[in-house]
Amino acid sequence: MKSGSTFLLAARQCEIADLEELARTGELVGAIGRFVHALQRERGLSNGFLASQGSRFGLQREQQLAECMVAEARVRTFFEVLDTDSAHARNGARLFSRVAVVLHALEGLPALREQVGTRAIAAREATAAFSRLIAGLLAVVFEAADSASDPEVSRALVALFHFMQGKELAGQERAHGANLFASGTLAPAGQQQWLHLIEAQQGCFRVFADFSDPEVVRADEASRDRAVGAEVERLRRIGCAGRPGAVDSSLSTEWYQWATCRIDAMRSVEERLALHLRRLCETRIAQARRELRDRRALLEALAREAPCPGADGTAPLGPQLERSVLALVQEQSRRLQAMGDELDAARASLGERKLVERAKGLLMAHRSMTEDEAYKALRQMAMNQNRRIVDVAEAVLSLAEVLPAGR
Amino acid sequence: MKSGSTFLLAARQCEIADLEELARTGELVGAIGRFVHALQRERGLSNGFLASQGSRFGLQREQQLAECMVAEARVRTFFEVLDTDSAHARNGARLFSRVAVVLHALEGLPALREQVGTRAIAAREATAAFSRLIAGLLAVVFEAADSASDPEVSRALVALFHFMQGKELAGQERAHGANLFASGTLAPAGQQQWLHLIEAQQGCFRVFADFSDPEVVRADEASRDRAVGAEVERLRRIGCAGRPGAVDSSLSTEWYQWATCRIDAMRSVEERLALHLRRLCETRIAQARRELRDRRALLEALAREAPCPGADGTAPLGPQLERSVLALVQEQSRRLQAMGDELDAARASLGERKLVERAKGLLMAHRSMTEDEAYKALRQMAMNQNRRIVDVAEAVLSLAEVLPAGR
Repeated sequence: MKSGSTFLLAARQCEIADLEELARTGELVGAIGRFVHALQRERGLSNGFLASQGSRFGLQREQQLAECMVAEARVRTFFEVLDTDSAHARNGARLFSRVAVVLHALEGLPALREQVGTRAIAAREATAAFSRLIAGLLAVVFEAADSASDPEVSRALVALFHFMQGKELAGQERAHGANLFASGTLAPAGQQQWLHLIEAQQGCFRVFADFSDPEVVRADEASRDRAVGAEVERLRRIGCAGRPGAVDSSLSTEWYQWATCRIDAMRSVEERLALHLRRLCETRIAQARRELRDRRALLEALAREAPCPGADGTAPLGPQLERSVLALVQEQSRRLQAMGDELDAARASLGERKLVERAKGLLMAHRSMTEDEAYKALRQMAMNQNRRIVDVAEAVLSLAEVLPAGR
Repeated sequence: MKSGSTFLLAARQCEIADLEELARTGELVGAIGRFVHALQRERGLSNGFLASQGSRFGLQREQQLAECMVAEARVRTFFEVLDTDSAHARNGARLFSRVAVVLHALEGLPALREQVGTRAIAAREATAAFSRLIAGLLAVVFEAADSASDPEVSRALVALFHFMQGKELAGQERAHGANLFASGTLAPAGQQQWLHLIEAQQGCFRVFADFSDPEVVRADEASRDRAVGAEVERLRRIGCAGRPGAVDSSLSTEWYQWATCRIDAMRSVEERLALHLRRLCETRIAQARRELRDRRALLEALAREAPCPGADGTAPLGPQLERSVLALVQEQSRRLQAMGDELDAARASLGERKLVERAKGLLMAHRSMTEDEAYKALRQMAMNQNRRIVDVAEAVLSLAEVLPAGR
């Protein structure tokens, strides 16, 4: 018959299994970071290639494809080892569903590249297709962060997810700024959208700073090239805050280069975050294994000291030993309780994104919009009302509760 | 190589595995309900036996033991089949830890009964020991509700948990009222605590009504015996709201009997809730299996119609078919998103209990109190300030954030 001790040890073993799965997820997230970075470059080069009618970035784009394919193969390797057979993967339903979206988007990638190469697609459309694929990859990271069962690892994943999301917004800003400068005219709508991309990035980096290891944040700050930051801010000032009207279109290339320097520097922070995550998993697994071993040894010692086995084969413990077991049981409960509380706190930071997703879903269902249209509608409302997207999303959701569905 | 379809189907299979595990948990919860009911009776009879110096309830108590043992054996059977080996049980760490607490308390049950039988323990102490065991069993149900991954099943579990918790408070009210009447004096502190037990019950039954199937709530209301309700209210009026001072101690037995009628009626509602939960799991499993079959057939049909397999053995789909797969993938994502939102809503109802647990943990750690003492301290603060326990818990937690630890 299973005793309290069996369950006490089994609970620990579950924690270890969870951590091991998290470590594998951490590797996958690292591979996704590399792939997203390669795709961001390919997106930028494809955009420049198409916008210049094929006169620029042709060779760089071809070279970038090789890097993308290596990174893609690595992500696919990790998808391959995800345990789709056992139906016991933690958060399997949601994670697998996100992976299905990514794999579907990857199937369309060769055709997309073909269209870019033959200039059979508009720059805007190609950029949107790359952005959708990247969003799908980031959604995999989001699920990983949302399903982590260890608070420290969860915090590291939340920090990494928000950093990756901020970096992706920086990539979108790079493309947006390059296009706006290249157009030769600063249109107010374009300027407003640019400001919006800056604000959204800042929101992501705030969460990153709140949830990451202080050392990583300090290293990030120390490694920043002030010259790059100053140039980016100068061009932002001209592009976003400058008077609407004609602008020197050669600033497009200048902006693109400085923005690229900034994004490349982010990539090395991202690598440091991924490394921190891997080390954290290793430390936590080693710690949990050690505790399991100590716990088992202690329980065995207690069982040996037990006065005499009862008629049913179990050994009733003396009052002293019983108190020891009770202390172990209570300590474990308290620890899990505290871990659960910390986890809830880490996950709460993911709530904003969930609100936006929910509002998007509502608009898609009730106004027959596509996902892109729904997001743009929310962003437009936010810009018009000078509010954050998450506040607009909340307003949309609370209105939906009082208004009937559909128009 | 695994395709998007593989992950799409694997995601569904995970949902089915989750539901099957939930169905098993549902059976366990049903068995716990029966055992808790039997223990509540044994607690009441033991209290009466001890309080009457062994002159009453002796035989009834002996008979009740048999029922308790049958119910305990059934719960143990379900514990036995919990998969402690795989370390892959969902929420294993927390659930197993709760089970360990229960098994530990069960080891002490024979000794407790022996002490009651020989009247070697005070009535109050025996009652507290039974209440701790029951609280441990309810904590297992709480974990089950907190870890359910299907929103409908989660709602049913939340409703059932709150009903069981309300019923347990009704059991405590029965004991408290019986003791207060038996003392022959209505002391103000005792009256206030009685009021508190009534309010806490009402809170539980409100959540039950919010989360359970409307038919079950209607059946519950229809089945209530108005005569019993009227008698309970009459005696509550005398006991709680009557002027402090001497009271007819024979009301103790009268109160005990009417309160027992009320609790026994609750037991049949509880059985209906457990039945509803089992049926719901069956329905959801059948539905998910049907959908998986349809989905698989559809994907196979799409693959057959695909124009030609690529060099890598995968079949690139034509634009028409690709849109069909995309629609499937998106529909699945949206569905999981909506399920996640509903789940969050159901779990939020468990937040109040978590707040109280957290405040208790804080008092235990920083004021070196036992769990009982911490709960009593919170309850006393709530009574003194005429506030709900959860509000006091929140105040304690927010104070802890600004004050240093310890005295």
